[in-house]
Amino acid sequence: MKIKTISGAERFSLKRSIDAGTDEQRKTVRSIIEDVKANGDQAVRSYTARFDGIEIDSPLVTKEEIEKAYTSLDSQLLQVMRQAIENIREYHERQLQSSWFYHRKDGTMLGQKVTALDSAGVYVPGGTAAYPSSVLMNVIPALTAGVERIVLVTPPGKDGQLSPGVLVAAAELGIKDIYKMGGAQAIAALAYGTETIEPVDKITGPGNIYVALAKREVFGDVDIDMIAGPSEIVVLADETAIPREIAADLLSQAEHDKLSSSVFVTDSMTLAEAVSAEVNEQLKTLPRREIAEAAVNDYGCIYVAETMDEAIDTVNTLAPEHLEIITQSPEALLGRIKHAGAIFLGRYSPEPVGDYFAGPNHVLPTNGTARFSSPLNVTDFQKRSSIISYSQSAFEEHAESIAAFARLEGLEAHARSIESRERRNSK
Amino acid sequence: MKIKTISGAERFSLKRSIDAGTDEQRKTVRSIIEDVKANGDQAVRSYTARFDGIEIDSPLVTKEEIEKAYTSLDSQLLQVMRQAIENIREYHERQLQSSWFYHRKDGTMLGQKVTALDSAGVYVPGGTAAYPSSVLMNVIPALTAGVERIVLVTPPGKDGQLSPGVLVAAAELGIKDIYKMGGAQAIAALAYGTETIEPVDKITGPGNIYVALAKREVFGDVDIDMIAGPSEIVVLADETAIPREIAADLLSQAEHDKLSSSVFVTDSMTLAEAVSAEVNEQLKTLPRREIAEAAVNDYGCIYVAETMDEAIDTVNTLAPEHLEIITQSPEALLGRIKHAGAIFLGRYSPEPVGDYFAGPNHVLPTNGTARFSSPLNVTDFQKRSSIISYSQSAFEEHAESIAAFARLEGLEAHARSIESRERRNSK
Repeated sequence: MKIKTISGAERFSLKRSIDAGTDEQRKTVRSIIEDVKANGDQAVRSYTARFDGIEIDSPLVTKEEIEKAYTSLDSQLLQVMRQAIENIREYHERQLQSSWFYHRKDGTMLGQKVTALDSAGVYVPGGTAAYPSSVLMNVIPALTAGVERIVLVTPPGKDGQLSPGVLVAAAELGIKDIYKMGGAQAIAALAYGTETIEPVDKITGPGNIYVALAKREVFGDVDIDMIAGPSEIVVLADETAIPREIAADLLSQAEHDKLSSSVFVTDSMTLAEAVSAEVNEQLKTLPRREIAEAAVNDYGCIYVAETMDEAIDTVNTLAPEHLEIITQSPEALLGRIKHAGAIFLGRYSPEPVGDYFAGPNHVLPTNGTARFSSPLNVTDFQKRSSIISYSQSAFEEHAESIAAFARLEGLEAHARSIESRERRNSK
Repeated sequence: MKIKTISGAERFSLKRSIDAGTDEQRKTVRSIIEDVKANGDQAVRSYTARFDGIEIDSPLVTKEEIEKAYTSLDSQLLQVMRQAIENIREYHERQLQSSWFYHRKDGTMLGQKVTALDSAGVYVPGGTAAYPSSVLMNVIPALTAGVERIVLVTPPGKDGQLSPGVLVAAAELGIKDIYKMGGAQAIAALAYGTETIEPVDKITGPGNIYVALAKREVFGDVDIDMIAGPSEIVVLADETAIPREIAADLLSQAEHDKLSSSVFVTDSMTLAEAVSAEVNEQLKTLPRREIAEAAVNDYGCIYVAETMDEAIDTVNTLAPEHLEIITQSPEALLGRIKHAGAIFLGRYSPEPVGDYFAGPNHVLPTNGTARFSSPLNVTDFQKRSSIISYSQSAFEEHAESIAAFARLEGLEAHARSIESRERRNSK
């Protein structure tokens, strides 16, 4: 792994030029969406045949398929999943917000009413990317928020089957609306509805370039989560850290994707060199070596800072999706970390602990967007309404001022709306 | 105003097909952005000359210009503005969120750290749309969130001057970085920086189609607020309401824009007819009659329901930006209102009270998006980071399960990251 010393002038960035789709792909996606809007189920069926290579007559997953999924899932894994669900629920329940209101002395009441979205759709990729954890991390915040209707879509394999892990994860959460459909056609079905699927208000979940383009396309008609880029980890460590562990953590992100970025920041050149050697060593026996090696070579780096202060500044500039702090006293640095999606403190919190199990969400801002965005949250499935209730006396006290302000802005009808109340007790 | 009775089968919608820009406009916007990225201030200067018709050598507003703005502003209006600022601050301070954490019995600590964005840019339109209230409503949430650097941009008039109201509003909030620039070039300058402007993390504020397209274009590199559509009001009233007041409120939205939508929903045909007549009467003397009349004719409607229940269902289907409830007991209906940006209760809370003065934000979801989005909020200028700190005993208890789950998902390096810690006390 390459080692660089930090020079003051350097601008660090995790930013990769992410596939934004070709014009051709955008056109394809738009035409699929139009077709699903116009022809509903029949259009979805024909795209499933074309892209997934299977005729699906009734896309709704049956009770029998769920039962079969349970029988094919390792029972130890089911136990882990159940524990993970408990952890994720516990954490997300803390994110719930309450409606609030307050009264001014003049009797005016102001407030904010929090309401769950009516419905949400979750996209779960198929094939090797069919992660049960995606189901948990997207569905649990929506359930916790109080969303009443949650629809899950996921593309079938060529045999018409779905991943047992995905099915069991959905079933454990009580999701019954599971449809075998994927790609842009599934996003269109969620956004605009078909004969069998009612449209939803928000669509979340990862997917390939067609799914990402389709989500961008329907955004505005429905809400979407952020379009995620490739995964990233930054490890910040001092000389007390163990090179083997840091190397393993860097590789755990690198195996996701050739575009994944694994970065190590330290104030110790000795540690930097040891970690670099460990990465090379551990790469040799990795099943996904080819992917991980490409990621490490192209988007991985070890930055050596002169001081821990400089190292922390570098982390803040990178604004990583995942940040591990493995130093003598990681908690002591927490106050100085400004930008990171998820922060893992100490050697017993390697990133995979958070990916699956600990409780916080694994849907995180990538590509430097942790500067301004947040992990998927219960509040992403709620919306807020302002409440304004003026008392008669408060209204009368301020009516003249409000009308004057309206006129300053050139809006006469606004002023008249106020003044229409002033003729007291008249009709 | 046209009156319709509600038939069960009807699907109501406030949705208008909003100008999404032509391909030509998108191309123009993209080339402006590229030019500003490449040529910075000089590019901005040349677009200002071209589009605003004025050569601006140094776009930063001077102290002298601020002082001049104060002298030209009516002192009563300054007092109103100061009261509005106090009200808006008071309300938005209630939206502040705290970081939190909790410990599990096994010593694991989990949490959510709330941090303000480092910087934000606010776009304020020029000309007749140069509303001081836009400054207040966009800047105060950012200030309250703790954003340290706030930059305001607004296009100059042909004489190189800015609206005194806008300048005073900004000065009252302590904003010093005010730049005379507008259009796509100003958005590009905020997103990517120039020699004089450091880039910001988030851009908010209304603007014309070029501004909207530019915001869409830079989204991802920086955050943006929602692209607002034309304004809407739905008034829900029963026979206790006063027709003159309802008509005035409907017109206060209609005067904004020919695409504005003013809808009245009631269970009383008598009231419906009286309101319709009042609207026609009041239109006659409105300065912005032409705009308001077009809006009322094209996008206005009175819906008469058989029952109040049916009327409430209609409101929820419409999901309006602004909702006024003027009934015998408006508070009693609040629990049944699911979708609305801002809810105004009772005849002493006409919508203009909230536009300028009451405290809640006037940047609200339009075009039916109140189903899934919220008013501009302090939390829109903060982001959250998850915190995960596993104790050694918690880690050891679950390491095997977590590694097993990782392998279920086919991610061997994830499992090894966990297992690299298991060789206890070894280096």
